[in-house]
Amino acid sequence: MNFDIIRTGRAVLHVTDLDKSRAFYDALGFIETESDEENIFFRGLEEHNHHSLWLKKKPEAAVEIISYKVRSEEDLEKLESFFTKQGSEVKWLEKGSQKALGKSLRVQDLSGLPVEFYAEMETVDRMLQRYDLYKGAKVQRIDHFNCMVPDVEKAYNYYIDELGFACSEYTAGEEEKIWAAWLHRKPSVHDVAFMNGPGPRLHHVGFWLNDPMSLINGCDVLASMGYAPNIERGPGRHGLSNAFFLYLRDPDGHRIELYNGDYLTSDPDFKPVRWDLDDPMRQTFWGHEAPDSWFDEASEVLDVHTGKKIDLKEPTLKKRKPTFVI
Amino acid sequence: MNFDIIRTGRAVLHVTDLDKSRAFYDALGFIETESDEENIFFRGLEEHNHHSLWLKKKPEAAVEIISYKVRSEEDLEKLESFFTKQGSEVKWLEKGSQKALGKSLRVQDLSGLPVEFYAEMETVDRMLQRYDLYKGAKVQRIDHFNCMVPDVEKAYNYYIDELGFACSEYTAGEEEKIWAAWLHRKPSVHDVAFMNGPGPRLHHVGFWLNDPMSLINGCDVLASMGYAPNIERGPGRHGLSNAFFLYLRDPDGHRIELYNGDYLTSDPDFKPVRWDLDDPMRQTFWGHEAPDSWFDEASEVLDVHTGKKIDLKEPTLKKRKPTFVI
Amino acid sequence: MNFDIIRTGRAVLHVTDLDKSRAFYDALGFIETESDEENIFFRGLEEHNHHSLWLKKKPEAAVEIISYKVRSEEDLEKLESFFTKQGSEVKWLEKGSQKALGKSLRVQDLSGLPVEFYAEMETVDRMLQRYDLYKGAKVQRIDHFNCMVPDVEKAYNYYIDELGFACSEYTAGEEEKIWAAWLHRKPSVHDVAFMNGPGPRLHHVGFWLNDPMSLINGCDVLASMGYAPNIERGPGRHGLSNAFFLYLRDPDGHRIELYNGDYLTSDPDFKPVRWDLDDPMRQTFWGHEAPDSWFDEASEVLDVHTGKKIDLKEPTLKKRKPTFVI
Amino acid sequence: MNFDIIRTGRAVLHVTDLDKSRAFYDALGFIETESDEENIFFRGLEEHNHHSLWLKKKPEAAVEIISYKVRSEEDLEKLESFFTKQGSEVKWLEKGSQKALGKSLRVQDLSGLPVEFYAEMETVDRMLQRYDLYKGAKVQRIDHFNCMVPDVEKAYNYYIDELGFACSEYTAGEEEKIWAAWLHRKPSVHDVAFMNGPGPRLHHVGFWLNDPMSLINGCDVLASMGYAPNIERGPGRHGLSNAFFLYLRDPDGHRIELYNGDYLTSDPDFKPVRWDLDDPMRQTFWGHEAPDSWFDEASEVLDVHTGKKIDLKEPTLKKRKPTFVI
Repeated sequence: MNFDIIRTGRAVLHVTDLDKSRAFYDALGFIETESDEENIFFRGLEEHNHHSLWLKKKPEAAVEIISYKVRSEEDLEKLESFFTKQGSEVKWLEKGSQKALGKSLRVQDLSGLPVEFYAEMETVDRMLQRYDLYKGAKVQRIDHFNCMVPDVEKAYNYYIDELGFACSEYTAGEEEKIWAAWLHRKPSVHDVAFMNGPGPRLHHVGFWLNDPMSLINGCDVLASMGYAPNIERGPGRHGLSNAFFLYLRDPDGHRIELYNGDYLTSDPDFKPVRWDLDDPMRQTFWGHEAPDSWFDEASEVLDVHTGKKIDLKEPTLKKRKPTFVI
Repeated sequence: MNFDIIRTGRAVLHVTDLDKSRAFYDALGFIETESDEENIFFRGLEEHNHHSLWLKKKPEAAVEIISYKVRSEEDLEKLESFFTKQGSEVKWLEKGSQKALGKSLRVQDLSGLPVEFYAEMETVDRMLQRYDLYKGAKVQRIDHFNCMVPDVEKAYNYYIDELGFACSEYTAGEEEKIWAAWLHRKPSVHDVAFMNGPGPRLHHVGFWLNDPMSLINGCDVLASMGYAPNIERGPGRHGLSNAFFLYLRDPDGHRIELYNGDYLTSDPDFKPVRWDLDDPMRQTFWGHEAPDSWFDEASEVLDVHTGKKIDLKEPTLKKRKPTFVI
Repeated sequence: MNFDIIRTGRAVLHVTDLDKSRAFYDALGFIETESDEENIFFRGLEEHNHHSLWLKKKPEAAVEIISYKVRSEEDLEKLESFFTKQGSEVKWLEKGSQKALGKSLRVQDLSGLPVEFYAEMETVDRMLQRYDLYKGAKVQRIDHFNCMVPDVEKAYNYYIDELGFACSEYTAGEEEKIWAAWLHRKPSVHDVAFMNGPGPRLHHVGFWLNDPMSLINGCDVLASMGYAPNIERGPGRHGLSNAFFLYLRDPDGHRIELYNGDYLTSDPDFKPVRWDLDDPMRQTFWGHEAPDSWFDEASEVLDVHTGKKIDLKEPTLKKRKPTFVI
Repeated sequence: MNFDIIRTGRAVLHVTDLDKSRAFYDALGFIETESDEENIFFRGLEEHNHHSLWLKKKPEAAVEIISYKVRSEEDLEKLESFFTKQGSEVKWLEKGSQKALGKSLRVQDLSGLPVEFYAEMETVDRMLQRYDLYKGAKVQRIDHFNCMVPDVEKAYNYYIDELGFACSEYTAGEEEKIWAAWLHRKPSVHDVAFMNGPGPRLHHVGFWLNDPMSLINGCDVLASMGYAPNIERGPGRHGLSNAFFLYLRDPDGHRIELYNGDYLTSDPDFKPVRWDLDDPMRQTFWGHEAPDSWFDEASEVLDVHTGKKIDLKEPTLKKRKPTFVI
């Protein structure tokens, strides 16, 4: 490939009640860059870009798009050529058509996920050292997308061979087929992960925290505000990725991961970590089981051309809820 | 009462395999004061007393005794008079008959729990500032006993009216009867708690940690050493007591709580916190459910005179596993 | 003695600008119970009493009183008898004459410190589990007073022999005379400490934090709000007391210590820790030197009868700024 | 440029007493990969490469080389061409001539720093999830070099324009000249920083910690082992870079920074943060002054061809110890 995808950039989620959503994400410690009656733009404390989470008021909850930042507009042109050659129909959104964003390219990826690429977003003041504004879980920045797709191995090969991602860790399922994989462009554990399941769906958006105590503090603050039922899983340690994690469900059921503790994956000769079925380390490191909802539920995604929900396909691998927990 | 019980002092537990037990408690960060082929004496990092946990090798796991430190030997005499008047048969153990301990008084309390009082224990060097020896969860000191008894209200009245404990928090069950209660002599949340259930049994021994990160570190260390299956519940925040907690099962199934985060209860006019059935704060603060094992399983206790296991009685209140979690 | 002093209760400080003081203490995370144009009443997050810090607007900064809570009003009568016998003139303040406080007894102690005893203070809601209100350094509760006095050994003997305090740790100076001492009623390291220097003066009021990260967070928040110049010393670890500490100067120069990490001192047979001149552990544990201001500056105190400043006396021991740091 | 430098790779330091050095770095939590009578190879807990710190026993302390990892051997050839064109004499070390390392290219950079590039290093097991081996400050990985050079602006231009580094933050000195600059290849705050001073010298090697409590724990462990005198500065927060830092001096005086808390710098349009002379945030965020030694002392470096020490040059900018602290 001759284009350069930099990192996970932002998610655009449809929500049904902006006030409820604002209260929830505000409690988590997001900074509201701006909003109107139909939209809220949130960013993390260290982010110098206008937003990493755009909530749009709609009649039904769904994922409009997950977006990656690329190096330059030239990369967008190259991506258009690439997708067109592949037979995928792309959609251009001109600068100005989306708040704070330059020109962008949207496409349904091979798994059916609505994916967008952009090079430019308006910058704003970082709040990194405005510790007086830190609250809740003190969300620092967007980190990754986790997607449930029917054929993980196909997605894995495509993102690595065609889009230039590298694999940090993966889980082998039946007949050594890849059941789940963590892929990155920035040198962290992942910008995107794929896991086997009915899809395409967005399982969660991961946000980075600066330290483990922010996650504990986040639990306390959420609980004191009545959000204990929104805590779905954790806090715990992932064996895979080594993340100290917490999974939350927002008022529309979109899943948010608070995340701290991965490692540097900059080296071209880094060997992906394989997790074997019989390795007890593969389970949640501390031995807790995830609730069924964590395996069964995910956010449905929209068609970038029609705006309608994409039909789910059954997964290639049979095991939907492994004995191990990702 | 005219005697002065100072605090929770030590537990004497029967275990079936000293090597397995040593490996587990050592991983948690306990300091081994001394040991022989039949006994291990452990203490926490700040403890200046010889031990707070005495493990005895026996064919069957059980609780031999839970011990409280009193102000002076004179208090032991007064306690003897008190128990004798109550019609309870006491048992004296002379100085020298137990390692490192002065004269002690043992008795089966009104719930059938084997309880001991002592004034004197040999002192040893504190390891408080030997940070180079800190490891695992960095256990600082013994904090409390939690006991499952058939009639909590009776135990509650007895410990408060007769033994001079004060109540910090309690849970009201059917017909405003006390379902569980947290009682203290030292000005923390508790030295002993009672909860409704088949008993008398020892539910857990609580040990104090200095900060929340020690608990998280403890989880990681335990898991890396293969003890993930020993993590029964947590980490989480108790609504009741505000503790940041972790429950572990030792190799014989004895339950240990790692505990951080209570508050000062020194004031005579401190009003016990009542937890109402419909108060959502009463549940585990972050909303997790405890596993059934946490409600069903506890360590059986021995008769101080015969050394045989005490028969269990059914609890007075019907609810054994409330919708709330203690 | 036949009276029972429970613990350090509150400080009443004179400040010159209530707005500046409010901004500072609010940034630290204190809860403002109430205020008017002349007064602000602050408490920590876990405190169920009306206040532990009372700021009064006055033309000049000073310490009006440091107050201890006693068990009952009866104890106040006994303290009156005691002080009167000693030849000290006491002053009664009737219930209602001080906001939220019951009857109180004031006296100049043998070092000249203005000391008050009270049994009753109005209770208010604890904010312990209102984590949504936690901010800054998340101050939990008042912990201790540290006083600079001309004759530490005299104060030491008096507080132990006459008032029933116990010593946790002390520093021996010239000719084995006590240069500084940490004394407690509640079973922590101290309710009051005395150090050698021109006095009587209040060196600082110590407030308890729940964990070390709250202290780090507090530094960041203070700095982001422009209070970096108010950070006088730390963060660091005291060898003596093992406290993880931070010293701040409020807008009038009153010194506040944020404090985490002491240990349980409940046992009657706890042997006070002696710090020897040549023991390197006696210094700040991590090896930092305290600034001169920390040794030289302290808050002047008022006469309980005249309301005028008490004259300073030169200390008995020559060393005012030891090579070690307390 | 057509070569791809990945990241800071390792430092090779000459030390005079291997046993003393081993004890120090072991206390910090480094993993010793292997050693013999002349060498110790250390790595951090998450590092999958053989070492990031190579200590060689020599009569005199010095910096032999600071090394960067490049993408492939091809990049080494391109770097050779580049340096040769620039008139710099390079030195090849063939695979096998250095323990665990593939072919490498050494050169004196324009400031006189001994710099090395390599593509290949033997891999070893990561200890990331061997939490039972974590100790001291739990050092995770090498992060950056900080170098004192006589002409920062020249170095800055060269590393950015010729070697492909990007600037995250910088400090402007006299006449808007760059007094110090933080440059990165991996998307963190820096792989290398340059500051104005007599040079070329290595000011410190920075190692990454996973969380702030590891730094606090590290202070306690070091102090308990007698290393308090080795703590030169901190803990504190840098305004510049936002790092939570601790500076240590090893037994030969080499300076080590323990470091946590920077931010993601992946974006091509990230605007370097400029620190102005009159901005109080530029100072150490919490307001502490650095000791003189921190500005005056640094490790001398060797000539890659002769092995002799490089003569120091006086800095271009006059201010050696600014009122601000980096």
